[in-house]
Amino acid sequence: MKILQVNDQISIKRSVDNGTGEQRKSVVNILQEVKKSGDKALHHFTLRFDGVSIERHRVTEVEIEKAFGEIDSEMIGIIEEAANHIEDFHRMQKRESWFKTLDNGTLLGQKMTPLDSVGVYVPGGTAAYPSSVLMNVLPAKVAGVKRIVMVSPPDQDGKIPAGVLVAAKVAGVEEIYKVGGAQAVGALAYGTESIKPVDKIVGPGNIYVALAKREVFGDVDIDMIAGPSEIVVLADETASPVEAAADLLSQAEHDENASAVVVTTSEELAGEISREVDRQLEDLPRRAIAAKSIEQFGAIYVVKELADAIEVVNQLAPEHLEILTVDPMDVMAKIRHAGAIFLGRFSSEPVGDYFAGPNHVLPTNGTARFSSPLNVDDFIKKSSIISYSKAALEQNYKKIAALARLEGLEAHARAVEVRFTKD
Amino acid sequence: MKILQVNDQISIKRSVDNGTGEQRKSVVNILQEVKKSGDKALHHFTLRFDGVSIERHRVTEVEIEKAFGEIDSEMIGIIEEAANHIEDFHRMQKRESWFKTLDNGTLLGQKMTPLDSVGVYVPGGTAAYPSSVLMNVLPAKVAGVKRIVMVSPPDQDGKIPAGVLVAAKVAGVEEIYKVGGAQAVGALAYGTESIKPVDKIVGPGNIYVALAKREVFGDVDIDMIAGPSEIVVLADETASPVEAAADLLSQAEHDENASAVVVTTSEELAGEISREVDRQLEDLPRRAIAAKSIEQFGAIYVVKELADAIEVVNQLAPEHLEILTVDPMDVMAKIRHAGAIFLGRFSSEPVGDYFAGPNHVLPTNGTARFSSPLNVDDFIKKSSIISYSKAALEQNYKKIAALARLEGLEAHARAVEVRFTKD
Repeated sequence: MKILQVNDQISIKRSVDNGTGEQRKSVVNILQEVKKSGDKALHHFTLRFDGVSIERHRVTEVEIEKAFGEIDSEMIGIIEEAANHIEDFHRMQKRESWFKTLDNGTLLGQKMTPLDSVGVYVPGGTAAYPSSVLMNVLPAKVAGVKRIVMVSPPDQDGKIPAGVLVAAKVAGVEEIYKVGGAQAVGALAYGTESIKPVDKIVGPGNIYVALAKREVFGDVDIDMIAGPSEIVVLADETASPVEAAADLLSQAEHDENASAVVVTTSEELAGEISREVDRQLEDLPRRAIAAKSIEQFGAIYVVKELADAIEVVNQLAPEHLEILTVDPMDVMAKIRHAGAIFLGRFSSEPVGDYFAGPNHVLPTNGTARFSSPLNVDDFIKKSSIISYSKAALEQNYKKIAALARLEGLEAHARAVEVRFTKD
Repeated sequence: MKILQVNDQISIKRSVDNGTGEQRKSVVNILQEVKKSGDKALHHFTLRFDGVSIERHRVTEVEIEKAFGEIDSEMIGIIEEAANHIEDFHRMQKRESWFKTLDNGTLLGQKMTPLDSVGVYVPGGTAAYPSSVLMNVLPAKVAGVKRIVMVSPPDQDGKIPAGVLVAAKVAGVEEIYKVGGAQAVGALAYGTESIKPVDKIVGPGNIYVALAKREVFGDVDIDMIAGPSEIVVLADETASPVEAAADLLSQAEHDENASAVVVTTSEELAGEISREVDRQLEDLPRRAIAAKSIEQFGAIYVVKELADAIEVVNQLAPEHLEILTVDPMDVMAKIRHAGAIFLGRFSSEPVGDYFAGPNHVLPTNGTARFSSPLNVDDFIKKSSIISYSKAALEQNYKKIAALARLEGLEAHARAVEVRFTKD
């Protein structure tokens, strides 16, 4: 791994992939076809892109039962336990509607209402992760969303992987369709004969899915467009190079474009981590991917003081941050920008990927400066509640009218005045 | 006003304005120029679009003092009172960081951190509303955002309206620049020699501003793109036609594309409101605008039952909803989709525009199905906190490793195992 001294300004930000002109045109065309021809278009594009002719897109109860038969029962128990942890953590986030009243009879508040319906996109192929199903579905379920729809591209046998179906069932999804790509996004946004439209689409996907989500945004809501995964390990001389290297590789194995970065006050540790990464790479099944990621985007920054390390991390605004120092809690207090923060040596990053409860859908590419992990608020909207009594309006309507006239809006002024002048 | 019987599916949704190809090209060009030439580009485009040569874009303390001289002190007092109400209401929304612990030494939580910096766009000309300054700035201030920057296009004399400067000062803005249009958005997103970049841009603007915000989204966060204003009045036979008509017109006077709609169980009221709207239109200063809005987008829907009226409102998902019925609280409980809900005859919609405290930046064009009024959460991001003790990881690492291997991610499994196997 590269060992570097830190310059003033460092960044792991890469440019967002907006697709090629060809890809964008293709997505717009697919969306239009789905809007126009509904299920017929879904059948057509599924045959073309997934190479399989699907008669009925909806997954049946029989298929789900069969999936349970394919996964061993101990594993199902672990998935259920993970789901419980995720539900527990997200339940803590949920806010109730609230109001406050004033002596003059004013009532003001916020009414919290779950979205009516949400669509969850689950990628196909090797990226079909049961954990991704749990992480995207459960916050919506905890929020109280009544209709949660899952879509995922079928494999060549017209199937969705058993692990994904089991996770969907455990998470409480009742409506699953075998359809993927931009055509699935179109179906969720506009509806077809067999799929009713939803209000929001979440979940990761390839460039076509990402472009389609961007295109339907406004007609429906979408979650953020995810970039490649990132980890930053902030370590002092007390960190174990073996553990730090293992955690770096758990990120690097995701994707050649993933990034694994260390910021440390210890020159000695830097060297040890670098050697450990090479050593542990040797017998890793996904070695080619991880090695490419480390080569392209891996780096170890050596800084003078812990304060400098914290400043570097705040500049990077990483998706995942591990703090491997003497007093991780103290360092955490000074971190302003990070998606998820893992404290101490027993909080290895994969703990958060699967099991602990916090969401693994996190802001990438420096967007932790302004965005958050997927959470219950993403599936709840607020309505302001305003109730003025006669006394409250009487006390205030002249001021309201004055403000309206300052802005040249006479009808606004008259609307409050008419309550008292017309009788 | 048109009086209609309701069909199955009604909507006040209009297509989003994505600009012409010419407008989009122009915006991309302006943004590139600002990125490349910084202040020089700002000077150039301000001269070209605002017709004024600005030497120094930053508004001085002297200019702000002068603005206070131009607004009478009673009005300043009212602006301050409105600001207090807005701050009070938004303070109720603020959530603290939280954590929970488990007996095995696990600590999980969410750390709430305000954004570092926010830019507020304030439109120029007749749309330069002091209330808009308060509504966009104060939630950010309550959230704890340290750096709040305001930009607004200068008039032909190189000035920003006094009311806007006064509101900015009252709201606590320290940094104001005389620059507008796409060039202002570019400066906020990329920074120039004299304007440091921000993390999020909020506030309404014309089509060039809206397109520019969409373009820089991802580099920075943006708020929603606002459409024309809407009001729906849900009324039974107890409502006053005079008051209902006045409230409809307060919305219609905003914009020819604004929409004012009534949903009522009373055929008689429908006729009375229609006549009242015509009567009140007669001597309205902004009569031409309001009449055009009513003609284009005004409608009164007559339904059989209150339950039908509620269903229609939920389909419309209006920005503003007034409930003028015998028991407004009971109706409100059944409303799922609306930006702001005004209860009873003394809660005329302008009460919420200026003074009561809830935000007047609201979801338009049916987006209340999935989005919320501007609020403190829009200026705060969350970081997940995960701290496992040795006991917690010991208890769970085999399950975590099993999940990782189910997904084919061996390095993930090894990362948790190495904590226990290496010694």
